Amino acid sequence: MHAHQELPRTAANHVPLTPVGFLTRTARVFPDLPAIVYGDLRRTWGETAARCTRLASALVNAGVHRGDVVAVVAHNTPELYEAHFAVPMAGAVLNAINTRLDARTIAYILDHAEAKILINDSELAPVIAEALALCKAAPLVIDIIDPAAPGAPLGKQDYESFLAGGSPDFTPIVPADEWDSISINYTSGTTGNPKGVVYHHRGAYLNAINNTLEWSMPMHPTYLWTLPMFHCNGWCFPWTIAAKAGVNVCLRKVSAAAIYDALADHGVDHLCGAPIVLGMMIGAPKEEQRPFPQTCRVMTAAAPPPASVLAQMAEQGFDVTHVYGLTEVYGPAVVCAWHEEWNALPVEEQARLKSRQGVNYLLEDAVIVADEHGNPVPADGQTMGEVLFRGNIVMKGYMKNPAATAEALAGGWFHSGDLAVVHPDGYIQIRDRAKDIIISGGENISSIEVEDVLFSHPAVQAVAVVARPDEKWGETPCAFVELKPGAEVSEADLIAFARDRLAHFKCPRSVVFGEVPKTSTGKIQKPPLRDRASRL
Amino acid sequence: MHAHQELPRTAANHVPLTPVGFLTRTARVFPDLPAIVYGDLRRTWGETAARCTRLASALVNAGVHRGDVVAVVAHNTPELYEAHFAVPMAGAVLNAINTRLDARTIAYILDHAEAKILINDSELAPVIAEALALCKAAPLVIDIIDPAAPGAPLGKQDYESFLAGGSPDFTPIVPADEWDSISINYTSGTTGNPKGVVYHHRGAYLNAINNTLEWSMPMHPTYLWTLPMFHCNGWCFPWTIAAKAGVNVCLRKVSAAAIYDALADHGVDHLCGAPIVLGMMIGAPKEEQRPFPQTCRVMTAAAPPPASVLAQMAEQGFDVTHVYGLTEVYGPAVVCAWHEEWNALPVEEQARLKSRQGVNYLLEDAVIVADEHGNPVPADGQTMGEVLFRGNIVMKGYMKNPAATAEALAGGWFHSGDLAVVHPDGYIQIRDRAKDIIISGGENISSIEVEDVLFSHPAVQAVAVVARPDEKWGETPCAFVELKPGAEVSEADLIAFARDRLAHFKCPRSVVFGEVPKTSTGKIQKPPLRDRASRL
Repeated sequence: MHAHQELPRTAANHVPLTPVGFLTRTARVFPDLPAIVYGDLRRTWGETAARCTRLASALVNAGVHRGDVVAVVAHNTPELYEAHFAVPMAGAVLNAINTRLDARTIAYILDHAEAKILINDSELAPVIAEALALCKAAPLVIDIIDPAAPGAPLGKQDYESFLAGGSPDFTPIVPADEWDSISINYTSGTTGNPKGVVYHHRGAYLNAINNTLEWSMPMHPTYLWTLPMFHCNGWCFPWTIAAKAGVNVCLRKVSAAAIYDALADHGVDHLCGAPIVLGMMIGAPKEEQRPFPQTCRVMTAAAPPPASVLAQMAEQGFDVTHVYGLTEVYGPAVVCAWHEEWNALPVEEQARLKSRQGVNYLLEDAVIVADEHGNPVPADGQTMGEVLFRGNIVMKGYMKNPAATAEALAGGWFHSGDLAVVHPDGYIQIRDRAKDIIISGGENISSIEVEDVLFSHPAVQAVAVVARPDEKWGETPCAFVELKPGAEVSEADLIAFARDRLAHFKCPRSVVFGEVPKTSTGKIQKPPLRDRASRL
Repeated sequence: MHAHQELPRTAANHVPLTPVGFLTRTARVFPDLPAIVYGDLRRTWGETAARCTRLASALVNAGVHRGDVVAVVAHNTPELYEAHFAVPMAGAVLNAINTRLDARTIAYILDHAEAKILINDSELAPVIAEALALCKAAPLVIDIIDPAAPGAPLGKQDYESFLAGGSPDFTPIVPADEWDSISINYTSGTTGNPKGVVYHHRGAYLNAINNTLEWSMPMHPTYLWTLPMFHCNGWCFPWTIAAKAGVNVCLRKVSAAAIYDALADHGVDHLCGAPIVLGMMIGAPKEEQRPFPQTCRVMTAAAPPPASVLAQMAEQGFDVTHVYGLTEVYGPAVVCAWHEEWNALPVEEQARLKSRQGVNYLLEDAVIVADEHGNPVPADGQTMGEVLFRGNIVMKGYMKNPAATAEALAGGWFHSGDLAVVHPDGYIQIRDRAKDIIISGGENISSIEVEDVLFSHPAVQAVAVVARPDEKWGETPCAFVELKPGAEVSEADLIAFARDRLAHFKCPRSVVFGEVPKTSTGKIQKPPLRDRASRL
């Protein structure tokens, strides 16, 4: 051993990484700057930190011990924001639950996570009451009473009086190790029980910082909460905004009018959202689309924005960054890193380049596309493989599910289940979920490739392509298509449109018109469509 | 133990933090962007990464093992930049040696660090030859042959042919643990032998990222190498510039003309330097001061810039950030974090605020000012205490010096030896090095406070105040003053000037005119002045 290696870690030079420190530092350096805007409510960073300290103290007083789970079911309100700091400051683990889940699933999650406390948004009282009746866990229930959304309280204490009972002098509990859990996020699996994806302090810290890097975020951003905080902890942005001493503009309900109001009234310059949010914005009635002087950066995932959307967005003052990730990697961990020289290209070409998911985040170690033996596929833009992630922005694992954890993290990589190609410049492009691929006559068909073509038809509002069982071919592509209001197109015309643009074996054999089912985050739900296709 | 805590680290979700990954990622995403500008030389990130890989391979071929030390004595050339990546890619530890040291000290360092390889700048051949003759270590000597600075080769191989012998397919060695050493930087102690401050991969990674945060650095900065890379690894900026895919404008010799040429010709927008560099810039003859359209951010440490300097800098397009640190904390780890509302204040008031060292870096856990019992001093702007650091940007320790390491890291804090006050807003201000404080009649006098007053006299170019032994008072302040060219002021006038602005016991009793001795990084050297004062 070399002499320089032998020097031991001490309390002076080794401190667990935790994003909670961002709040502490910002509250000390910029105590009077605004942290929260919500309706008429305004709170500074000093006030926010003081409230988080009190809440952490109240949680400990209520019997929360290190490692206990505190569940929150709430819209994007200041309370859910505070929980992202106060819960870890109590040494506990935050479980932010999807507000659109049914009572049975919420009950399952409360039981599986062994929640000790449930902070609930009174607007959601009916479904939460049902969940509490169904579950075995008996969490202490705290009600968020919001005049903007009245509902019946379910517990004995409301959030404000609970918080007020905490001590302002409480010393926050620091993680014993940066590998300690900070949160559990349940995947919105469409089949089977949801899995509890566990995040650690180290990953939350690194991804929160990484968010500032991918956007080269200035100090004091004004961030609009369009992305749900229950979704991968809002991609770690609660901690990011604290790190940059920004403003959190909270929104109970996302609507085009609310977004444009926030842009025009509060100077919002950063927001995240599924493409459905982008569509909502540019599709809004003209009277809701208020002008704003600043450029607003928009981070979007799940589906690449088409050229027409990008062009309209740019015209209004939006600058779109395309990212990709999964709950298991703390939200996005791949970004279509932009090359300045691309700005000189025609907008369609820019859209084509931007439709690619891109490259690993700077602080994620590596993202590759590999064949079934784990070898990288050639960077030919053609050969599909599975997207694998490795690095410190990969989950600890699935709670109480060692088999699924071992499978997901096998061979030193997190297996995403997403299929992609690698372009010659190293940028990856998702072709499909492994389970969504259509195998027709022995050929793989990317459902996304077919969807992209159909989506470019002017009459199409939304589209999903799934496998339909076929005696001769094994499977054939079946398209479910939602048309724009007032638009018309026939099945034959759409298939012909596709045949002009795709290899013929990739074209849908059947088209079903009607509304396409979506998840709470705007993702299209394919399992029910596969079911319908099999019964056509 | 909670179920969510039990999930073990795997190769998929736990990777040692290392700044070497920034080069890998940037070379893959932006291979064709410029990385190096040096005279007529231009290299892209792809080329730079390929050269670093070859150099790492050549080092391993030459017998360098994991943990071995590779020393480099060189000016701010592309070779020293490459060493910041290639040496750790070989699993080795970089020891960048101050180019202005005497042969005896260099020999001491080579022996103490047990250097296996010495890469040397042929311009420095005479002193290196002497050092090699003095030392017991027998490193393999590699010569950097630079047509811009010819000198006699000392070894059997030149850098380019050595590098060319490495394999382009070499797989970089990754640290076994992020606590592994990445570099050793010897403090330029003015008394006794220099101490070898050991940095680890984790700290280098975090400080490199922190540099981007404090400046909210955009992508693709153009960074001018005015700060020596041998100085705390250039405050970790070699790694920062790789992370942001920027341009490194290398400078063999710092001069005002070279700086203005780089600003005007290469669009430099970021640079670091001691106040002496700032003084050199605004003091340069008008014909050397070329205009430039961009704003250039300047990070400066060591002494606060006076109002007049700040005003002149701003007028020319410079935006100065004041930072503070020591070799033991990887360069700066404290920043005078700017409040936007301060921009509305008069320039003198801005200078007063900016003269304070400020607050801990976001990714450094904590910086406090404590009394001798380790308790924080009151934030009254008056009470002095020692500046203590804690966090992941604190050295591993001093190589082969467990006693000094234990003393420096005692009680869970790194003891800086610097004395400071804390202002009511939590910003710290350095009052003195512990050993520079003057104790007169039982009262502590901050030498810096007296210097600041004398420095504000229009005739004064540089000033140092030290303790002079005094039978009655114990010590009294003695000022060494360097006047501006052509300026005149008498001892009596200067003392009167000070008495108008300071408590009388703080005023210098004697003033000595003449050049003030400085270190290679522009810091004033007080020990020889104390010696002279004691003999007055």
